Amino acid sequence: MRYRFALIRSFTLSAASGHPAAAGGRTKQESLPNHADVAHLLSDVDWELLAGPVAPYGDWAVENREEFALVGAARLAIVKQACESGKYNAIVLLGGGEPGAPAAREIARRYGIPVTSSAFSQMHVASMVGRRFSFVDLAESHSMHIYDLVLQHGFADRCASIRSINFPHSRPRYDAAGRDLHEEKRKALRGEPSAAVEEAVAAAVEAIEEDGADTILFSCSGTFWLRPFVQKRLAEIGWEVPVLDGLSTSITLAKALIDLGVDASGLVFPGDHPRRWRRKRTF
Amino acid sequence: MRYRFALIRSFTLSAASGHPAAAGGRTKQESLPNHADVAHLLSDVDWELLAGPVAPYGDWAVENREEFALVGAARLAIVKQACESGKYNAIVLLGGGEPGAPAAREIARRYGIPVTSSAFSQMHVASMVGRRFSFVDLAESHSMHIYDLVLQHGFADRCASIRSINFPHSRPRYDAAGRDLHEEKRKALRGEPSAAVEEAVAAAVEAIEEDGADTILFSCSGTFWLRPFVQKRLAEIGWEVPVLDGLSTSITLAKALIDLGVDASGLVFPGDHPRRWRRKRTF
Amino acid sequence: MRYRFALIRSFTLSAASGHPAAAGGRTKQESLPNHADVAHLLSDVDWELLAGPVAPYGDWAVENREEFALVGAARLAIVKQACESGKYNAIVLLGGGEPGAPAAREIARRYGIPVTSSAFSQMHVASMVGRRFSFVDLAESHSMHIYDLVLQHGFADRCASIRSINFPHSRPRYDAAGRDLHEEKRKALRGEPSAAVEEAVAAAVEAIEEDGADTILFSCSGTFWLRPFVQKRLAEIGWEVPVLDGLSTSITLAKALIDLGVDASGLVFPGDHPRRWRRKRTF
Amino acid sequence: MRYRFALIRSFTLSAASGHPAAAGGRTKQESLPNHADVAHLLSDVDWELLAGPVAPYGDWAVENREEFALVGAARLAIVKQACESGKYNAIVLLGGGEPGAPAAREIARRYGIPVTSSAFSQMHVASMVGRRFSFVDLAESHSMHIYDLVLQHGFADRCASIRSINFPHSRPRYDAAGRDLHEEKRKALRGEPSAAVEEAVAAAVEAIEEDGADTILFSCSGTFWLRPFVQKRLAEIGWEVPVLDGLSTSITLAKALIDLGVDASGLVFPGDHPRRWRRKRTF
Amino acid sequence: MRYRFALIRSFTLSAASGHPAAAGGRTKQESLPNHADVAHLLSDVDWELLAGPVAPYGDWAVENREEFALVGAARLAIVKQACESGKYNAIVLLGGGEPGAPAAREIARRYGIPVTSSAFSQMHVASMVGRRFSFVDLAESHSMHIYDLVLQHGFADRCASIRSINFPHSRPRYDAAGRDLHEEKRKALRGEPSAAVEEAVAAAVEAIEEDGADTILFSCSGTFWLRPFVQKRLAEIGWEVPVLDGLSTSITLAKALIDLGVDASGLVFPGDHPRRWRRKRTF
Amino acid sequence: MRYRFALIRSFTLSAASGHPAAAGGRTKQESLPNHADVAHLLSDVDWELLAGPVAPYGDWAVENREEFALVGAARLAIVKQACESGKYNAIVLLGGGEPGAPAAREIARRYGIPVTSSAFSQMHVASMVGRRFSFVDLAESHSMHIYDLVLQHGFADRCASIRSINFPHSRPRYDAAGRDLHEEKRKALRGEPSAAVEEAVAAAVEAIEEDGADTILFSCSGTFWLRPFVQKRLAEIGWEVPVLDGLSTSITLAKALIDLGVDASGLVFPGDHPRRWRRKRTF
Repeated sequence: MRYRFALIRSFTLSAASGHPAAAGGRTKQESLPNHADVAHLLSDVDWELLAGPVAPYGDWAVENREEFALVGAARLAIVKQACESGKYNAIVLLGGGEPGAPAAREIARRYGIPVTSSAFSQMHVASMVGRRFSFVDLAESHSMHIYDLVLQHGFADRCASIRSINFPHSRPRYDAAGRDLHEEKRKALRGEPSAAVEEAVAAAVEAIEEDGADTILFSCSGTFWLRPFVQKRLAEIGWEVPVLDGLSTSITLAKALIDLGVDASGLVFPGDHPRRWRRKRTF
Repeated sequence: MRYRFALIRSFTLSAASGHPAAAGGRTKQESLPNHADVAHLLSDVDWELLAGPVAPYGDWAVENREEFALVGAARLAIVKQACESGKYNAIVLLGGGEPGAPAAREIARRYGIPVTSSAFSQMHVASMVGRRFSFVDLAESHSMHIYDLVLQHGFADRCASIRSINFPHSRPRYDAAGRDLHEEKRKALRGEPSAAVEEAVAAAVEAIEEDGADTILFSCSGTFWLRPFVQKRLAEIGWEVPVLDGLSTSITLAKALIDLGVDASGLVFPGDHPRRWRRKRTF
Repeated sequence: MRYRFALIRSFTLSAASGHPAAAGGRTKQESLPNHADVAHLLSDVDWELLAGPVAPYGDWAVENREEFALVGAARLAIVKQACESGKYNAIVLLGGGEPGAPAAREIARRYGIPVTSSAFSQMHVASMVGRRFSFVDLAESHSMHIYDLVLQHGFADRCASIRSINFPHSRPRYDAAGRDLHEEKRKALRGEPSAAVEEAVAAAVEAIEEDGADTILFSCSGTFWLRPFVQKRLAEIGWEVPVLDGLSTSITLAKALIDLGVDASGLVFPGDHPRRWRRKRTF
Repeated sequence: MRYRFALIRSFTLSAASGHPAAAGGRTKQESLPNHADVAHLLSDVDWELLAGPVAPYGDWAVENREEFALVGAARLAIVKQACESGKYNAIVLLGGGEPGAPAAREIARRYGIPVTSSAFSQMHVASMVGRRFSFVDLAESHSMHIYDLVLQHGFADRCASIRSINFPHSRPRYDAAGRDLHEEKRKALRGEPSAAVEEAVAAAVEAIEEDGADTILFSCSGTFWLRPFVQKRLAEIGWEVPVLDGLSTSITLAKALIDLGVDASGLVFPGDHPRRWRRKRTF
Repeated sequence: MRYRFALIRSFTLSAASGHPAAAGGRTKQESLPNHADVAHLLSDVDWELLAGPVAPYGDWAVENREEFALVGAARLAIVKQACESGKYNAIVLLGGGEPGAPAAREIARRYGIPVTSSAFSQMHVASMVGRRFSFVDLAESHSMHIYDLVLQHGFADRCASIRSINFPHSRPRYDAAGRDLHEEKRKALRGEPSAAVEEAVAAAVEAIEEDGADTILFSCSGTFWLRPFVQKRLAEIGWEVPVLDGLSTSITLAKALIDLGVDASGLVFPGDHPRRWRRKRTF
Repeated sequence: MRYRFALIRSFTLSAASGHPAAAGGRTKQESLPNHADVAHLLSDVDWELLAGPVAPYGDWAVENREEFALVGAARLAIVKQACESGKYNAIVLLGGGEPGAPAAREIARRYGIPVTSSAFSQMHVASMVGRRFSFVDLAESHSMHIYDLVLQHGFADRCASIRSINFPHSRPRYDAAGRDLHEEKRKALRGEPSAAVEEAVAAAVEAIEEDGADTILFSCSGTFWLRPFVQKRLAEIGWEVPVLDGLSTSITLAKALIDLGVDASGLVFPGDHPRRWRRKRTF
């Protein structure tokens, strides 16, 4: 098998959290969110789904910078272990906000293993199929974390906007009940009307008509399920716009990097004892 | 077979031209330059190598803007025919300067077929593995055509430099004999010293040390054979820098786009009778 | 006579096409669209109007990238012939989308002859009189071709927007009747109300009030006639905004370049056998 | 007392590490590196020096992205505790690579407390006194972490270069002995020649003469002691260039923000339950 | 006393002008507009308020580029005198449009004295607390002068917009009566409704919601009094956005520069007889 | 006569100053520096040479920001008078550093009169003939004034560098004797070797080979005479690079603007009582 992937989740919550991810499933396929959407991409991959770290900040989904910093740091041990195991030739970091991604790439490069992640992969594919993309996001603090990622990856000139539908996850002192994204997903899959779908379509249309987006992305893995629904609706409206998600693009670019035999430039992710050093770096 | 590719050459010269491409080969593998470098990438592809148009400007390799415009226009009929044939699900445009690429993407989009090309593919992969890339180029006019492509694809901020080794192809009133890139290739493959290899390594090192490049690309298909030689030499020197070429990256990204089921945004490459139109475009 | 210009049209259609350009006129003045608007600029010019190539893609006006590539390549022979004739000291390329312009400049530079064209000239003059300009455009595919030109000429930071009034030309499977730009022109010249004028004024006002434009341009030669109408209306509204067109600015800049004795930098448009070559290019 | 600062160190090493920071001092003044350089700035401040977290990755100084991610996350608990204590009205994050800074700002904003840090503060002051700055850095991986910070803070256009003198700290499999920055500091303070001073001056001069820097910064707190030495030497050479460090600028900007009664925009660092949310963000 | 400031006004009008500034006050506190807002910042400053030059263009407030050029030049003699007096260790230039600022910085640098001014100081502080700011401005010509200042200070990428409330000062052939900003201030301070406050709040909200501003600035000293009113109203609405003004930020940054012992880079503001010169400057 | 120009000098010095400009000439042709270079451009112009203001700062040539501010303000009265006279349809501001230019454009726009100046005109023409230009400059403070002009005119992305040959004018405490630019000019015109010519050629070559310039400009009117000498030498070396100067380009663009019937956008240079105002400005 050419591809041997570790898919590493962002965090682990307790069963009591009520978060769908906590429930898990009997098989890895059942446990991987939106597996059906990517089954064809995984058909030639020998993959495992690795649990994320127990969320160090509390028993809820990651949303703000503090939580991303904590859970990102905690995920690095899992990344390192996956690299050391020798079982994988690529690592796919799950989670829209890609906690721990830059350090994970640095670690994996020591092993010659490429790492892909959600914002990274969506923005690169969006740049191939279009000129300017917009993210659909779900919460104030999360949006600014994504803002940081756009800057860090050097895509500010291609990001038309980050549009919010304001569907924050439950967290202490905020109960998402009545406006819960997981419930919206269940509704949509049952074919019932879903406010999240409606508002995501509206946000995408505004991104297209007002902000100049020609490609639509999703910034939180909790919203990746919206992709086919939004894609279908935009097509019906007449907007011929690609809609991407972080999981399918991450799997696809991981394969591409393996095929090409590259992982990351040693000048961008230097090792601790590099043979040569650069006198200067410029922007 | 999941992938069915048309690899379309840039131009066709006469046997009298002395150009290696003119000689061709008995098999498509023999005819495809540097096939050995990409054989593993084509192993799961049902591919055909389509001849390019007879060079409309004369019997020599394309190098300046006029020649690119003429041969690019001439190649479009072949692209269209490939699309209409229904035989392919992706088109790979050969030729470092990707003649005709923007119009080819527009044509192919009418058929839902992705198109990849050399500068496009190398720059996108370089952006994934590093921050800033440099091209190694071979002629004054060709360098400025590549300069235009960098601007057109929106990569000026990621292009550290276009470095030239000044190895122009033969053309009227210029005989490359004594400094012929095809001869350099033969020497290098025979294990003999090659000025082209030496000068390309020197250019790459200058790009790294002076211009800030962390990834090295080749702008002309006539230099793609240099990739493994330069990669090996940089590694020996101690520079851990990915070296890419246009053919392997074009094949790989074509697969990625097929896997994802996308070709190009309909807002960037609109059809002639779009269902919706945009009131404004911004940059 | 100081100025000896070749004005080269973009394409030639058949009389059966119904396109006004096909009809021609008895004199060059009658044949040059909007001659009255530029008569004072041509009064000290010895000029000829050269027919464009027969449209290679079909008997309709150029609008998408494929058509621009084909007709642009076809026009180069006429450019070369005009240069070789020794009769002209500047070439003015007609046509808003300036088909073939970059290669035409390369060709003409071998003869020391400056070339001006519509998007080029308008954007340069707009930069002199204002900070940010907007184009008024007429069709989805055409707008994206103009988008490419803005990037290629390096004016993305000065282009506030490309605003569309969606008045595509007739083409196979699209009959512009009832919304035909040529008919709008006739109406406007007769002093009758014209939807094209109204919508162009509205687009210009939106460009000013929402996009930050301080100068208005027209991207298609089929809309150049709108200039005086839009200029007058904006003045009436109270917006003191220059409105330009491609023909008057192209003639004017051609004179400026002749006066200064320059055509184009040999480093941007190198010849095939340059005496010196550059080791690197940067952005 | 108007100012009540918590100065929070980046990490804590064991006494066995041999790192000067581990030794500490009897007083906070002795424990604060380069206290003499900032004593006048702290004279009107009621300050405490809080120990950093025990370095989670091992017993050596932070240098690569993995280490920054781990120690940055570990420092957040200390930041939060400092905020909750009610004792401070500003937090100064020590450490050139400012581990944990973005999340620390988010946390402290909930308490209305400004946070300053080294790269942040130096780049802002450099922008006030000059147009373009260069950092003097000490290690390959550290340089790229600083590169990331420049991007994240939005200063790429003002950063002329990151110049390296390649003086990495000791770490597993690398013994800095013979080229140890702490030893260099001792030499310099004793008035003896120091290779680090010489090479930092040379790097600064190259930044000025070749890269266009008009202000010099230091990216690692292990090099802040170089400031007065480099400043003096540049003045002797005749270059009238401000040389800054992270500690003095961080203290100074913390005072400025307190004086102005601002900490950070709630739109950049939103709380978890904001009263209002933005429909879109742009760049 | 650590800080000894000269606060230099922009211009002097006659008592007959009716301008509040002309009236002056018995004490410097009474004469300094909005003194109450900055009293705490001046408590540790030994300051004098220096009269500006008699307005050379006429007896009204400065508003357009001509007036700024004239009054800016006239103010330089006062700046020079203040420097020569040896009484001050910083100069604070009053006036939102900071007339004469660049030359004033050049002059003062010969004496090692830092100079701060309104647009400069607000934009630097805004960059510390947020990512993108908007100015609230009051007149067409004044807005474009501010536009120039944003460009000159290199903040175009951080300026979300300049929003106008169109409240021009009285000038020949324009009587502001009925819409007079000074009268608005009196109303607001009396607790009465003020159109200026209402329109400034509306402009700030549009800047936040439509333009992406996260910090609000005021471009004319005639509007600095609006700061606390707008700050309070935005807080009530729920927008947690810092609102700044030019006076408080100028005083604060002047202190910061004094504390750090820096004024301006000698490469940006070279003296007339520099010891060294640079072969090249880049952007 | 179609063109009626006022050529306005920057300043007037006393005969005792020894400055060539002070000497003047019997005719306007003799008084206009480098008249021979532009005689053909003035042949269809009815022009007058207006004296500049007596230098307000002292009896030497303008070089630093203070001097530019003072003499720029002083020149405005002459500009206004020229406009009011009704004798001219364009104003050409002499002087490389274009003192007073922005305000002069604002003033002249009230009369519908275009204004051109040296940096403005050279940069616009350079953008037409090439992609990136370099200035050759003569003094530290003057270089930074030019730096400001590049930013103000929005050309930072097209300016490859400002190269200095360090030939400052005489001023208090600096006697240029032995390295006097006016003496260099006399030598060069006599056909003798000139250090200024040699160093300017060297600077131009470095700009081309190292900085990426494809067009060469001169930033000070005291160096405009170098243009034909540098042009000739670059051609001999084999660099096919346009060399421009401020006088010929200013005259030429003034004609272009008159021909087109435009001066400046009323949104960039608003009048004092505009009929309409903009709610926002963006960058």
